[in-house]
Amino acid sequence: MGPDPAVATVRVAVRRALNDLPAGARVLVACSGGADSLALAAAVAFEAPRAGREAGGVTVDHGLQEGSARVADAVVRTMRDLGLDPAGSVAVTVGAHGGPENAARHARYTALDEAAGRLGAVVFLGHTLDDQAETVLLGLARGSGARSLAGMPPDFRRGEIRYVRPILALDRATTRRACLAMDLEPWDDPHNEDPAYTRVRLRHEALPALEKALGPGVAAALARTARLLRDDAEALDALAARAYADVLDGEGGGLDVAALEALPRAVRTRVLRRAAIEAGGPAGTLAAVHVDELDRLVTAWRGQHHVDLPGGVRALRRYGKLLFRRRGTAADGRRQ
Amino acid sequence: MGPDPAVATVRVAVRRALNDLPAGARVLVACSGGADSLALAAAVAFEAPRAGREAGGVTVDHGLQEGSARVADAVVRTMRDLGLDPAGSVAVTVGAHGGPENAARHARYTALDEAAGRLGAVVFLGHTLDDQAETVLLGLARGSGARSLAGMPPDFRRGEIRYVRPILALDRATTRRACLAMDLEPWDDPHNEDPAYTRVRLRHEALPALEKALGPGVAAALARTARLLRDDAEALDALAARAYADVLDGEGGGLDVAALEALPRAVRTRVLRRAAIEAGGPAGTLAAVHVDELDRLVTAWRGQHHVDLPGGVRALRRYGKLLFRRRGTAADGRRQ
Repeated sequence: MGPDPAVATVRVAVRRALNDLPAGARVLVACSGGADSLALAAAVAFEAPRAGREAGGVTVDHGLQEGSARVADAVVRTMRDLGLDPAGSVAVTVGAHGGPENAARHARYTALDEAAGRLGAVVFLGHTLDDQAETVLLGLARGSGARSLAGMPPDFRRGEIRYVRPILALDRATTRRACLAMDLEPWDDPHNEDPAYTRVRLRHEALPALEKALGPGVAAALARTARLLRDDAEALDALAARAYADVLDGEGGGLDVAALEALPRAVRTRVLRRAAIEAGGPAGTLAAVHVDELDRLVTAWRGQHHVDLPGGVRALRRYGKLLFRRRGTAADGRRQ
Repeated sequence: MGPDPAVATVRVAVRRALNDLPAGARVLVACSGGADSLALAAAVAFEAPRAGREAGGVTVDHGLQEGSARVADAVVRTMRDLGLDPAGSVAVTVGAHGGPENAARHARYTALDEAAGRLGAVVFLGHTLDDQAETVLLGLARGSGARSLAGMPPDFRRGEIRYVRPILALDRATTRRACLAMDLEPWDDPHNEDPAYTRVRLRHEALPALEKALGPGVAAALARTARLLRDDAEALDALAARAYADVLDGEGGGLDVAALEALPRAVRTRVLRRAAIEAGGPAGTLAAVHVDELDRLVTAWRGQHHVDLPGGVRALRRYGKLLFRRRGTAADGRRQ
């Protein structure tokens, strides 16, 4: 008799991820003890020896809840029982910068970077299709186009460390069923039920309401959307990088308006955004509305004198060129 | 004392749309009697003479509700009172093809095409930012990328007839306030409250749940997303059209695999989709998963023999080319 179908599904996904790694690469599973990363840990423990890989596990104790050290110890024991070696926990101190979710994420990734660096390992993360769907909806709120809807990448780097999400195409129901079938008891983080978190409200209210309106399969559709838009963003960002070099005017600086006008709008707006950032505009506060104003300087010029951008950057159109200046500086570079 | 701010906002948007029309173009407002198109009709009646334009109005009686003819007559009277000339109604028969919403839309646009054709007019439609947000969410359910999230275009053609949506950037609250300020009583279509319609469920359940999770401004973010992704889709579709011509192998037919491989994935998947459709695959049933399979023939070939697509199309990789065949036909064209 083969394994339970859910277990088999997780294992197939993990096997594929292991096969995609370069020869000799070790794996480190990041496991919170929740159903997703627990199912991942079990599948890695099963598949890694068969693929000739060494695989360990690490759990991060964020120290945010009463008894978190005990939870971490239990997760370490479980990982060890599964056969992950080494298996350990890292206690971190979560700051307050950028809100509680961001601060916890920052502390977690810093600890994972370090643990993986020590072992020379690739980190496997247990995010699922449902996490991806929530991430896409979080990006919707920003409304800043393909990049913000592209969700989480299945594979990325932080400095030297490579991260892979082997079960990003599987749903939470599958990881739960897999844990159940393997008699593994997942730890349910009470934070995952706290409506103070945007992600929890999305999970428990917005996504069910969307499913009710649109029918089942919304999470999968959102995940598919993310993947397609990630491809789109990559292609257009690469085009924009090349176009930016092309429209740059070598001599006096600035961008050539005629060359800008000839670009498709999706590329031109990316070039303009980049130019504004290079001129000192802060990426975080440079919104679509600012880029639109810049675009009007190019495509709907009716003698507008200039456009003021965040970060004290001013854009002007002069003699067929788009120039960026710090505010308080004349177009010819003199202080006003 | 100037007009109410909401009235002024609608008028500014209409003035801009009127100014963007070619000299001499007439306008025909499509008005259901609802707040959105009523506010639009009033603003057009006010602005058109000032812009030196002739403007009429038309309402479509779908005949789907008890008393719909009476509603249509009332809307015609209102349009006439506002100063739209000619103002009239067209009764249509709604079929059943493609579901009730699609059938009604088809009947409505056919009637509008005809009315506008008779007058040589550009049709103004009263869709708002909230309609746009709902349309984006409807597209999410399809999960087929930028094109399905691009919402409604602000300006489009159906055959000879041009359609413009002048108030696509305004929200429903503004059109309601404008009607109130002008003492115009909008007609509330009972269909707009019927949860049998997907759009109504999105409006009354999913969007409020999203706002609750993500904060206010979700509708505006969705509308902004639509605009950005529309640009992206246009740029990438244009690139794909050129790339398709480039990778086509003139002699034996088929696509050059090496040339396909060199394309960014966002472009390559569009080329593959197009090739499958040109080979006879029905656009409606050709899903992302099929395109992914095709892509694997190109980028992750491990000797797969072929990929079967909807519509009896089979794709094969042979001698560095991707070939499309009707199933039951050998790669060399002979019937099997």
